[in-house]
Amino acid sequence: MRIAFQGERGAYSEEAARLAFPDGQMVPFPRFLDAFEAVTAGRAERAVIPVENSQAGSITDTYDLLLSHALQIVGEVDLRVRHCLLALPGETLQTLEVAYSHPQALAQTEVFLRQHGLTPRVEYDTAGSAKLVAEQRPAHAAAVASRVAAEIYGLEILAEGIETNPDNRTRFLVLAKDAAARADPSKTSLVLVLKNVPGALHRALGAFAERQLNLTKLESRPNRRAAWEYVFYVDVDCHQEEPRFAAAMGALGASCEQVRVLGSYPRAK
Amino acid sequence: MRIAFQGERGAYSEEAARLAFPDGQMVPFPRFLDAFEAVTAGRAERAVIPVENSQAGSITDTYDLLLSHALQIVGEVDLRVRHCLLALPGETLQTLEVAYSHPQALAQTEVFLRQHGLTPRVEYDTAGSAKLVAEQRPAHAAAVASRVAAEIYGLEILAEGIETNPDNRTRFLVLAKDAAARADPSKTSLVLVLKNVPGALHRALGAFAERQLNLTKLESRPNRRAAWEYVFYVDVDCHQEEPRFAAAMGALGASCEQVRVLGSYPRAK
Repeated sequence: MRIAFQGERGAYSEEAARLAFPDGQMVPFPRFLDAFEAVTAGRAERAVIPVENSQAGSITDTYDLLLSHALQIVGEVDLRVRHCLLALPGETLQTLEVAYSHPQALAQTEVFLRQHGLTPRVEYDTAGSAKLVAEQRPAHAAAVASRVAAEIYGLEILAEGIETNPDNRTRFLVLAKDAAARADPSKTSLVLVLKNVPGALHRALGAFAERQLNLTKLESRPNRRAAWEYVFYVDVDCHQEEPRFAAAMGALGASCEQVRVLGSYPRAK
Repeated sequence: MRIAFQGERGAYSEEAARLAFPDGQMVPFPRFLDAFEAVTAGRAERAVIPVENSQAGSITDTYDLLLSHALQIVGEVDLRVRHCLLALPGETLQTLEVAYSHPQALAQTEVFLRQHGLTPRVEYDTAGSAKLVAEQRPAHAAAVASRVAAEIYGLEILAEGIETNPDNRTRFLVLAKDAAARADPSKTSLVLVLKNVPGALHRALGAFAERQLNLTKLESRPNRRAAWEYVFYVDVDCHQEEPRFAAAMGALGASCEQVRVLGSYPRAK
């Protein structure tokens, strides 16, 4: 099975893709859009795309692409982001002087880098900085990147889990052309376009609350049809084939102009 | 009055700041954080900071900074983003060959640029590309930037309102150390930390809906205390001194662990 992901080889997206598909053939694409289109056109069977990080928040491009494409969400991966310090063989924590990475990864490992006297150097990408260290071989330079990047670029892992906040997680969606087989416990993601009436959002959420359907996520994005109108992305803790979900969908008609189910999929552990 | 904004001179933030404070002294800062800290420390009396764009959505850094600082929202500015084509005196639409700007501004003016045979060239900033054209004087090169940038860098406006979608607006917040005097109609912005119980968001929104208090915006951001928990930013169409707002605040206790009012301010026209 060909699994599309965005980024350089060794990106955290590839790590998430391998968790979900240990035997898959990982195919990198430069942009999220390219990965969506690869699945749409049948050049890949699945795409694994980040949707939110526990520190930085939602990846809004992903939400917009879900709306502009007809793919189904068939799974999710909840990845603990464990940054590693990677270096060329022969280097040690004592010989290293600088560390390359994406600004966010450098910020998240700031305490470790300072403790070990490593000067941060900004690069465009975590996996890209591992590639830089492996190919350009700058002296006494490390990269902050994933365990998978170490393997791909032949670097040694001198330290693992060097992030200051251990609750650093990224949630990925698995996308496919066809819906997933039912599994429990499931989640269902949907998009709501509200009617332009006061209290519409409260009433829409009531359709779920009154049926004891728990929402795990609510995200608003601009409805580009008019300024300061929004669409809402909702994750509900149940499968769309459950009778109370169907009842909630019926009740949404009073407050929503449009409802689209993006897929039901097994909840990540 | 000293007005802090983020960006190069001539940024759209400066245009918004001038709309709100025609006689203010505009003070540029490199980062949003610097502008927040300038007001906190009394080095500026106001900051004018973008909070959302009608096409690209919320500026999440601004939401996070509102939570980590004790400033009051005292106003809002709803700016129609009108991109202009700026060039050195002597150039015309016929002599121009390339156009520099931020990738988003180039995307928003793509149709115009193509119609006039202008090759897009990516720069880090709209005002920065006006500065580049004015200072480095590349031949037959224009910048896509604001009317204010033309004035600041001594460029000519060859075309105005060249964006494809005319409903391109950015909403800015005006921040100060002290609360604004009451004016009607007003809006009030607040942050909710929900109790960890099912249906808490629905119940919190009910506190407003039951009192016919209209919500104009709902934004979720990670609550960094634990992965996959959120805080919600809400804009309500009324002043915090209205009795039904006080009643809603009382009712929020059932669903919210914490509520913070960020300020009441006159609604933008």
